[in-house]
Amino acid sequence: MKVFGDIASGNCYKVKLTLEQLAIPHEWQHVNILEGETRRPDFLRMNPNGKIPVLLLDDGTALSESNAIVDYLAEGTRLLSSDRLAKARVLQWQFFEQYSHEPYIAVARYINKYLGLPESRRHEYESKQAEGIKALQVMEQQLKQTPYLLGESYSVADISLYAYTHVANEGGFDLAAFPAVVEWLSRVQAQPGHVTMEQFL
Amino acid sequence: MKVFGDIASGNCYKVKLTLEQLAIPHEWQHVNILEGETRRPDFLRMNPNGKIPVLLLDDGTALSESNAIVDYLAEGTRLLSSDRLAKARVLQWQFFEQYSHEPYIAVARYINKYLGLPESRRHEYESKQAEGIKALQVMEQQLKQTPYLLGESYSVADISLYAYTHVANEGGFDLAAFPAVVEWLSRVQAQPGHVTMEQFL
Repeated sequence: MKVFGDIASGNCYKVKLTLEQLAIPHEWQHVNILEGETRRPDFLRMNPNGKIPVLLLDDGTALSESNAIVDYLAEGTRLLSSDRLAKARVLQWQFFEQYSHEPYIAVARYINKYLGLPESRRHEYESKQAEGIKALQVMEQQLKQTPYLLGESYSVADISLYAYTHVANEGGFDLAAFPAVVEWLSRVQAQPGHVTMEQFL
Repeated sequence: MKVFGDIASGNCYKVKLTLEQLAIPHEWQHVNILEGETRRPDFLRMNPNGKIPVLLLDDGTALSESNAIVDYLAEGTRLLSSDRLAKARVLQWQFFEQYSHEPYIAVARYINKYLGLPESRRHEYESKQAEGIKALQVMEQQLKQTPYLLGESYSVADISLYAYTHVANEGGFDLAAFPAVVEWLSRVQAQPGHVTMEQFL
């Protein structure tokens, strides 16, 4: 299988982390968003929504949306329980991530780190802070009670939330205010087969 | 089981439609967002993120995030295949809905229909139009090829996307430009056990 993505994107890094922790052989094709590579016809044939990551299976099937890819890869493994309620809880955290976390924390990081916080987008950047903090508070509340988001066991829910949380400082978020989140980051990093974004840059 | 929600919210209506089509007995507790009912301590104990819908199971377990609830309810039924790739494709559409569709189409509808398009939010409302149209184009492209989002069969992917698409006009989107989407809306409405938002208002 082949992944089209940019490892510095948390959404793509989720997929890489899952592939590495499950030791799934794959090819990685770097895609440069800023150069418009997700707008080209051959890319849009794989994902008409023009976003990375895309997983291309050997039979030519293309799958998009980071959390859908992660769950597809993890099905039947230690990273995704087959229990009905546990699976629903994984999805709850992943939809929380895409709706209430990523649009604030990842977008603030993008404006700051990749665009260099231009004056034209400063207001938007600042408008992201309150909701990003709220998302971190929701995580903190869970992680004060349990070592991982689902409870006692590490799962794809942790992978999906780790991706942008561990670089939230690049979006202007001070994680020192969230001690349970900081401890959880260390627990995730200590998992067998953990890989960093940096080692693939 | 009990659902906390507002039927006029597409995210809540998804859950209602799934429950009715599967003939699952349930109680519905109306929640008034504008009165701050999702900010009260008893609600935040069920969902620390303060959003509807919430599904409360008989054992006291609370589950949030509309698409997580829908998939939980539909597991093992005709609405959610057990095939690995089909499940991933359902999730692909549902994550697309929450990231690339709902934040534009549902939010524009909210500003227009519920807040009465106040001058202070006109710019935000207008800024939602281009991305909402893009989301409808992605749906149109699929629905020109297949009768339902996953192919030949109706599934929870259709329920999740139908919820806000069928009221997109209330957000200023003219569906006449998307004929395959309009035909699909009719096919969804013709499904056995289909219920409308209006009949529960």
